[in-house]
Amino acid sequence: MATATATIRNGVNTDQLFATLDAIKADPSIARFQFRARNRWIAGAHNRSTIRDFYAANQEDTSRDGEFVVDAGEPAILLGTDTGPNPAEYLLHALAACLTTSLVYVAAARGVHLTEVESTLEGDMDVRGALGLSDEYRNGFERIRVSFRVKGDAPRAKLREVVARAQARSAVFDMVANGVPLSVDVETP
Amino acid sequence: MATATATIRNGVNTDQLFATLDAIKADPSIARFQFRARNRWIAGAHNRSTIRDFYAANQEDTSRDGEFVVDAGEPAILLGTDTGPNPAEYLLHALAACLTTSLVYVAAARGVHLTEVESTLEGDMDVRGALGLSDEYRNGFERIRVSFRVKGDAPRAKLREVVARAQARSAVFDMVANGVPLSVDVETP
Repeated sequence: MATATATIRNGVNTDQLFATLDAIKADPSIARFQFRARNRWIAGAHNRSTIRDFYAANQEDTSRDGEFVVDAGEPAILLGTDTGPNPAEYLLHALAACLTTSLVYVAAARGVHLTEVESTLEGDMDVRGALGLSDEYRNGFERIRVSFRVKGDAPRAKLREVVARAQARSAVFDMVANGVPLSVDVETP
Repeated sequence: MATATATIRNGVNTDQLFATLDAIKADPSIARFQFRARNRWIAGAHNRSTIRDFYAANQEDTSRDGEFVVDAGEPAILLGTDTGPNPAEYLLHALAACLTTSLVYVAAARGVHLTEVESTLEGDMDVRGALGLSDEYRNGFERIRVSFRVKGDAPRAKLREVVARAQARSAVFDMVANGVPLSVDVETP
């Protein structure tokens, strides 16, 4: 029993983690993933994404037993009725979630038991950009500040090293920091 | 009554929309916004953001009557238990939601009545990057494809113009396409 429980650290099955890394090293083709979202406009600033299927390990994934439904909106001052967080807030959430999961996985792999991980994120924006009132301001956040609070059974330097490694490997951190090539197609049936 | 109902287009109060633009032109200081998210790790790939307060129009907003709670997770193949969409999927959702709301607002301002707006987004990733197995692959998506399907009472060329304008002014499109300066602080109490 001690052996069985020892493989779970921070809620992560580290045996499975190392087995996954070995499997990818043996057959890199399984590392190709495609994630997807489908969105439908409802009214005004209210729209809804459904998220379920994705491609991984040379096949369509069938492990999810239902779709996730995520609603977006805008607060009153941005002409919405608060049907959900707004898109920029969802971007902050995506960034927080990715850094946190990366941090938790890195800690699990390195033998660090975490007891608390919290983060606050702030993004500053002058809405003259997105509202088309001025070209002096970009549409998105001018900057994003992320503040982590991390506790665990390792020395502070080790905890900071784990956060730094997570930042260096987070998928969403990379995308938000560096941008992604984007294409937009339009069908008007 | 005809006058009152005429101010709502695509679920957007266009009188309020134009009044907002005029108010910002008269006092640009109200265009400064700050959005926020707070995230807490729960276990493994499960973490949760709470989203409520933000700064706008020279004050803390008090219009929201509660906080939004958004859970993230990972599917089994990425060592999670599917407690929510994963962070990269949330980034796709943020992008879809922002482009859609921008499109709906632009159409409302330009007198275009929309009847349907749907989008599908796909992001391709080789997870050798994020898993730290290879420096030849970036951590995030190599590319994102967005496909819109838009119906309304305007000619196709006009609908395409509305989508192009939305893309040119979307906050999240800008951030994902061009990146954002990011800082990460760590507290280890």
